[in-house]
Amino acid sequence: MATPLPADLRAAMAQIAAAVDAEFDALLPVPDDARRPLYEAMRHAAIGGGKRLRPLLVCASAQLFNVDPQAALRTGTAIEAIHVYSLIHDDLPAMDDDDMRRGKPTVHKAFDEATAILAGDSLHALAFGLVADPDTHPDPFVRAELALELARASGPAGMAGGQMMDLVADGAGFDLATVTRLQALKTGALIGVCLEAGAILGRVPPEGRAGLRGYARDLGLAFQIADDLLDVEGDAAAVGKAVGKDAAAGKATFLSLLGVDRARAQASMLVDQAVEHLHGFGAEADLLRQVARYAVERDR
Amino acid sequence: MATPLPADLRAAMAQIAAAVDAEFDALLPVPDDARRPLYEAMRHAAIGGGKRLRPLLVCASAQLFNVDPQAALRTGTAIEAIHVYSLIHDDLPAMDDDDMRRGKPTVHKAFDEATAILAGDSLHALAFGLVADPDTHPDPFVRAELALELARASGPAGMAGGQMMDLVADGAGFDLATVTRLQALKTGALIGVCLEAGAILGRVPPEGRAGLRGYARDLGLAFQIADDLLDVEGDAAAVGKAVGKDAAAGKATFLSLLGVDRARAQASMLVDQAVEHLHGFGAEADLLRQVARYAVERDR
Repeated sequence: MATPLPADLRAAMAQIAAAVDAEFDALLPVPDDARRPLYEAMRHAAIGGGKRLRPLLVCASAQLFNVDPQAALRTGTAIEAIHVYSLIHDDLPAMDDDDMRRGKPTVHKAFDEATAILAGDSLHALAFGLVADPDTHPDPFVRAELALELARASGPAGMAGGQMMDLVADGAGFDLATVTRLQALKTGALIGVCLEAGAILGRVPPEGRAGLRGYARDLGLAFQIADDLLDVEGDAAAVGKAVGKDAAAGKATFLSLLGVDRARAQASMLVDQAVEHLHGFGAEADLLRQVARYAVERDR
Repeated sequence: MATPLPADLRAAMAQIAAAVDAEFDALLPVPDDARRPLYEAMRHAAIGGGKRLRPLLVCASAQLFNVDPQAALRTGTAIEAIHVYSLIHDDLPAMDDDDMRRGKPTVHKAFDEATAILAGDSLHALAFGLVADPDTHPDPFVRAELALELARASGPAGMAGGQMMDLVADGAGFDLATVTRLQALKTGALIGVCLEAGAILGRVPPEGRAGLRGYARDLGLAFQIADDLLDVEGDAAAVGKAVGKDAAAGKATFLSLLGVDRARAQASMLVDQAVEHLHGFGAEADLLRQVARYAVERDR
């Protein structure tokens, strides 16, 4: 059973990581039939790894509105399932062709490509099953709105569309505006739905969500610039995946367009802006403020 | 705007085919940016082809309960989007490696593998966005229940799980019970949710759906046996995809286990059973009765 998050970011992250692992463990019992490798692959990708930034954002925003922590945790786990499915598919040979993810072999390496495709598809369906489940939230309006926003954020007008832009980005000479739009779709949309989900669970009407939306937009971009910096300056062992790939591919990124110093300054400015969007909240939003600073200070 | 289905099966199929094409066309306007190939790939797969059996089943069952035809059409289009996404991913080189589908090149042949993966993922998200959309049905309970049932039917305990069993089936020596379970998951679950959706849209409580569930179960198996027969006896041009693949792979199917004559007799018996499950309905279920007979009499 989920409990409210502690005020300290490291403690909150540790609590969320353990709780999300426990949710996936309970959701994915391995069946004793030919579907065994599918479930094992889903568990390999979903359990034990990652920063769990998205579930943290859902839970931290939900507690601004006194939402049942278990409802927030299950919703956060659903969005994490979408994130994990996208990583599995991104890592495939036909996409980014990565061998390591979160410090472990990627799913198509540990299993095979067909199993990886199906494991991603299965986590995708699992996410919608979770948000639409009466066990997650008793109000069908909340469940339907979560499913709708999650579909919008992950589909062709969101994450999958950003992925497509990213695929054609190699050598395409994208300018800063196009890279910003690419990242707003590829990672920003799903980060946005995390904050939106906290508000939906708290039955905050759309007109009351402007601050959280602004926070999410700036956080998402800051987070992506920090990711670009880690790709250049980070240590593969700490990051848990290969680094230096963007530059090798000649891909236009915030870093290639701005240079290290301006990119770092831009990320820092975005964090300040993100925090500013929370001015309507008191100490109950301190965790979200810490997350914003963590986004650019992390080493993985 | 959707209208009630005509009583004649061929006319109803033609009407549904045109209406589903029009829905996908409206849902997938091609954007003037780098996401263009993604939308073109989705349109390639989703528009103009297929029997549209699943939308037909949704609309035919929904009209038993006087459901708004437009709500049924949009729900049927959502389930068709799930079906199309599964075909795109199934056809990938790492899966069944097929070059032709519905008489056209498969998506990874007409575009490339990465675009095919993302087009499948995008149609998957689109499906949930459709059923969760207030424009599909005004009652959030209906929208949430549709999303939940669709997730269950398409995920690892349904279609994706059946796909996984199918992947390991080559030379695995599955017996009739295992092949029956494989097909109940792989194709039966999604066919089941079509009939279930008609009842959900009609606000029929679960205890009132037994007849439709029985019909769906028998129809799904009959349909699959007919598919196995087409794989052996069908004409690739009429079927619209390669035939003879199961036998070449040494895969256990209804046909390899039963032989042609017993398989045909079994399919015919299942159709009779499916029709029998509709005994509680009058002439309003005649279209579903015609669909059951069509399932085993079709040439594609």
